[in-house]
Amino acid sequence: MRFFTFEGIDGSGKSTQIKCLKEYLCSRGEEVFFTKEPSCGELGKIIRKEILDKKKKIELEPYAELCLFCADRAQHVKDLILPKLKEGVTVVCDRYYDSTVAYQSFGRGLDLDLVSRMAEASTLGIKPYMTFFLSLSVEQARSRLEERLESTKMDEEPHDFHVNINRGYKKLLEENPSRIKLIDASAAPEDIHRQIVSHIG
Amino acid sequence: MRFFTFEGIDGSGKSTQIKCLKEYLCSRGEEVFFTKEPSCGELGKIIRKEILDKKKKIELEPYAELCLFCADRAQHVKDLILPKLKEGVTVVCDRYYDSTVAYQSFGRGLDLDLVSRMAEASTLGIKPYMTFFLSLSVEQARSRLEERLESTKMDEEPHDFHVNINRGYKKLLEENPSRIKLIDASAAPEDIHRQIVSHIG
Repeated sequence: MRFFTFEGIDGSGKSTQIKCLKEYLCSRGEEVFFTKEPSCGELGKIIRKEILDKKKKIELEPYAELCLFCADRAQHVKDLILPKLKEGVTVVCDRYYDSTVAYQSFGRGLDLDLVSRMAEASTLGIKPYMTFFLSLSVEQARSRLEERLESTKMDEEPHDFHVNINRGYKKLLEENPSRIKLIDASAAPEDIHRQIVSHIG
Repeated sequence: MRFFTFEGIDGSGKSTQIKCLKEYLCSRGEEVFFTKEPSCGELGKIIRKEILDKKKKIELEPYAELCLFCADRAQHVKDLILPKLKEGVTVVCDRYYDSTVAYQSFGRGLDLDLVSRMAEASTLGIKPYMTFFLSLSVEQARSRLEERLESTKMDEEPHDFHVNINRGYKKLLEENPSRIKLIDASAAPEDIHRQIVSHIG
C-alpha cells in the first residue's frame, strides 16, 4: 500500500515538496491522489470553513479542536483515502495523525496518552507506509514565512507552541524510526526532493 | 453546584419531565438554565444543522460521530454550562456524557475504554451532581413514539441498537449508584415528576 504523509511545522516546505513529488510521480505514470488535512471531504469542508476559519471567531476549547481534527480524519479515511488505496492508487497526504499528537498534545498540552489513542483510532487502522518529517527550526520557518509575507500564519500562536511541536515530532521520529524519515528541511528544495525520492524508490 | 442531567432512550419521556421540572423549579424562584445536547452553542448549531441533520446525507463514520459529540460537549461546557454554574445558576441538561458511553460504545460498538475516556475528557471536569435515568423498555418507548407519530425517530436504527443503549445505561447506573438515579419511566408522568422532585429536595 503506497500511502505517504508529510509532516512539519508551517514554513517547513511541505507544499513545495508535495508539488515536486507530484511532478515526479506523475512523470513516472503513477496514479496518485493528493490530499490534505483538514480534508476537502464533506465533513472537512464544514470543519474548515464553518469552525476553524479564524474569522468565524469560535474560540475553540483545545479538546474540542482535537475532537474535530479526529472526526475529520476518520471521515477522510472512510470516504477518500481508503477507497483510493483499495483501487491501487498511491495516496499522498499533507499532515496526518502525527500532526494531531504533535499539535494537540505537545503544542496545546493535552494528555499525551489520550491524544495518541484518539489519533490512532482516527486512522481506522490505515497507517502511512512512509512519513516525511521536514525538520526546520522555528526561526528558519518564521524567516521563510516572512519572505512570503505569511508570517501572520505563525504569529497566531506563541513561539514556544511551535518549538514544542518540533519537540513532539522528534519524539515521534524516535518512536517510529522505520516509518518516519527525517528530512533536513534547511537544505535546497532540489536536495530535499532528491532525499525524498531516494526513500520512495 | 446544582447540575442535573437527564438520560434515557428516545421516547422515555425526558422532554416531558424536564418541562415539569422547569415549572417546579421556576415556581420556587430558582434561577435555572435549561440546555441540551447536541448543544445550541455556536459549535453545536453547526454540528447539528450542517452535519448531523440526516438530510445532509453525510454518512458519518461512528468514530467521527463520537468525536463530534465530544467536541460539542467540551465547547458547551466552556461557553455555556460552566459560566452559568459559576454564576450560581442551576443547570439542567437533556443528555450529557452518559449518552456518549451508552450510544457510541454500547450502541455503535466502539471500544468502551476509549469512549469512556473521551466522554470523561469532554466534560472538562464538570460532572453532574445528579443524573436521572428514565428507564423504559424499547417496546414501550416505540409505542409512545408511535402514538405521537414520531416512530421514525427510532426506526432510523435497528431494534438491538436501542436495547444495547438501555444495557449501557444500566451498566452506568451500577457503576455510579450515588450519582445516577433510576426512574421507572413507565409510571404516570405526575408520579415520575414526584420521584424526581423527591431526589432533588
